[in-house]
Amino acid sequence: MQSSPARPGMLEQDVDTPALLIDLDAFEHNLDAMMQMLAPTGVALRAHAKTHKSPIIAQMQIARGAVGQCVQKVGEAEVLAWGGVKDILVSNEIAGMEKARRFAALSGIATMAICVDDLFHVQQLEAAAAGARGRLRVLVEIDAGGGRCGIKPGADAVSLAKRIAASRHLQFVGLQAYHGGAQHRRTVEEREKAIAHAVQVTTETLEGLSAAGLKCDIVGGGGTGTFMLEAKSGVFTEIQAGSYIFMDADYARNIDTRKESVGAFRQSLFVLSTVMSQARKGTAVIDAGLKALTFESGMPLIWERQGVTYIDPSCEHGQLKIKAGVDAPALGEKLRVVPSHCDPCVDRFDWYVGVRNGVVECVWPVSARGCTS
Amino acid sequence: MQSSPARPGMLEQDVDTPALLIDLDAFEHNLDAMMQMLAPTGVALRAHAKTHKSPIIAQMQIARGAVGQCVQKVGEAEVLAWGGVKDILVSNEIAGMEKARRFAALSGIATMAICVDDLFHVQQLEAAAAGARGRLRVLVEIDAGGGRCGIKPGADAVSLAKRIAASRHLQFVGLQAYHGGAQHRRTVEEREKAIAHAVQVTTETLEGLSAAGLKCDIVGGGGTGTFMLEAKSGVFTEIQAGSYIFMDADYARNIDTRKESVGAFRQSLFVLSTVMSQARKGTAVIDAGLKALTFESGMPLIWERQGVTYIDPSCEHGQLKIKAGVDAPALGEKLRVVPSHCDPCVDRFDWYVGVRNGVVECVWPVSARGCTS
Repeated sequence: MQSSPARPGMLEQDVDTPALLIDLDAFEHNLDAMMQMLAPTGVALRAHAKTHKSPIIAQMQIARGAVGQCVQKVGEAEVLAWGGVKDILVSNEIAGMEKARRFAALSGIATMAICVDDLFHVQQLEAAAAGARGRLRVLVEIDAGGGRCGIKPGADAVSLAKRIAASRHLQFVGLQAYHGGAQHRRTVEEREKAIAHAVQVTTETLEGLSAAGLKCDIVGGGGTGTFMLEAKSGVFTEIQAGSYIFMDADYARNIDTRKESVGAFRQSLFVLSTVMSQARKGTAVIDAGLKALTFESGMPLIWERQGVTYIDPSCEHGQLKIKAGVDAPALGEKLRVVPSHCDPCVDRFDWYVGVRNGVVECVWPVSARGCTS
Repeated sequence: MQSSPARPGMLEQDVDTPALLIDLDAFEHNLDAMMQMLAPTGVALRAHAKTHKSPIIAQMQIARGAVGQCVQKVGEAEVLAWGGVKDILVSNEIAGMEKARRFAALSGIATMAICVDDLFHVQQLEAAAAGARGRLRVLVEIDAGGGRCGIKPGADAVSLAKRIAASRHLQFVGLQAYHGGAQHRRTVEEREKAIAHAVQVTTETLEGLSAAGLKCDIVGGGGTGTFMLEAKSGVFTEIQAGSYIFMDADYARNIDTRKESVGAFRQSLFVLSTVMSQARKGTAVIDAGLKALTFESGMPLIWERQGVTYIDPSCEHGQLKIKAGVDAPALGEKLRVVPSHCDPCVDRFDWYVGVRNGVVECVWPVSARGCTS
């Protein structure tokens, strides 16, 4: 584990690099903006902790009215529950008795729920629950159009829900209908079309459940790219956005700020880096490469430096191109980099460094870093 | 931090996932094979710890004859030095007085050396050395053709070396001439051409240094893809290969095993993963995505499963395509995944799980995980 790159009271420019910065003004704006947008809809926020991996940030969301947190992994749920978060949904399937037992154990200290899309998962949870107190709370995940996980909506989903409801050890609590792919579609119209489909198949499944006498406490879905579509649908009870707190270059490339709710959020996450070599004219090398940033969603951006472009990463280096006529950054100069995909970028770091007006205000651990199991 | 996914004595198939496996037989073969290949050349191995980030593995390399270790970052050097490694080269420039002071502090407990490619770095190290005991050991990095870091070979490099040699606080110990890009070129011929160029510019610079009365204790370079070319050049004194201990899918896609030394190494690193959902025919979803694997060098491979292909990652999911007519892996089944790029993949995990004949033999921390500063 890396030692902390900063201490409260330091200047941002003295922070050791690479370091994961939160611009606290922008971050707090985002926390508040989400609650303000959701308030008129009456739909709850269950913020996704896969973005931040931190009980500290989870509690800030809950203090503003979030009903709880989502996680993708039992390891993340453990860190949140151990950090005092009381209501956690594993918005995902798990496979393996070891994981099922870890999930059941957490149900003793927090209100837990988990998703299934196959009888296999149901049987596994029943086996784990047999040794635990109370019933484990289970949602059926339907394929809302993303084509990743999730049982076929309609009759198949209803049949699985019935099986859960009939179990001595489990409790059926709702539907998971998250359309991951829709978050990053390039146009508003594509996203609207994708979520219209998700709403339609969710509605059909809810009708089937109702006909079978089954009630949903939770109908969950929605991410930062589409959440107002789900929130206004009249079908979803909870929104699972995560990235809205930080944003990233991929969202920035997609947003039509005139048309979209996501335009209300500001970039609050940065990787602070240092120019470490400048041996060739027109280029510079910074100390943030594949181990400090991510590239599956394209290149990161250099913040507020027109004409300075991140063009090529290696493990620990980032090569910048300096446009002719533009002042090149100096050797030793620190640059803010905008990650192209916030979730996995956070997972590269052990520490958040919170800054306001150029001064470090707080240092928080990324407590669930690396909790992929 | 994630809790350990395994305990010695467990079966591999019971290891919690995703987990970073080392096939110990293949790994030990690789450790030995490198020493056997280098022996006739008389060139030393200074293995690169950016691959493994572990003092445990460093000591295994040193026990077999490696003269020491390379690292890219001071944070990695700290973890190695604190773990008892006595000879460490930071094969890279650093910028920032905080880092320079950390480097100087390490020189009190290990034989340290570091690279520079600009007067800026020299002055910074001098300032840090003023408060330390003894002279800091410095190499001049030349651009051996990679076009990343490194001063222009020849007169410019000699001039910088003279400046170091004249310093009261520094000692000039040699040249760094690593050609990173050459490691991953697609054909033997391209790699031979790249290293011939590196050898040529290194030779020219050595002649200049010699004329100036400056001696090189270290002439370092070479990686897993090209090391025998450097070793046989008569110019290099140390080889800096790292990946050879693990290998990866990117190397595997390039190797001509009939022609190349790198063909002697076996795949020893795997990410063990579990099939967590299988809701749609012809596909399966495993629990290893962007946070457990890397994708900048292409898709990972599924080990020894013909017709099963990793096609699409998301943060915590990997989508597999199952060829028609092939047995699909079962829900809950564990699959070995071959990382496409070993270095950054190791950095995704807190633990190595060493296995032999299907049984867990050891669990080691990835001690310098996340030490990017």
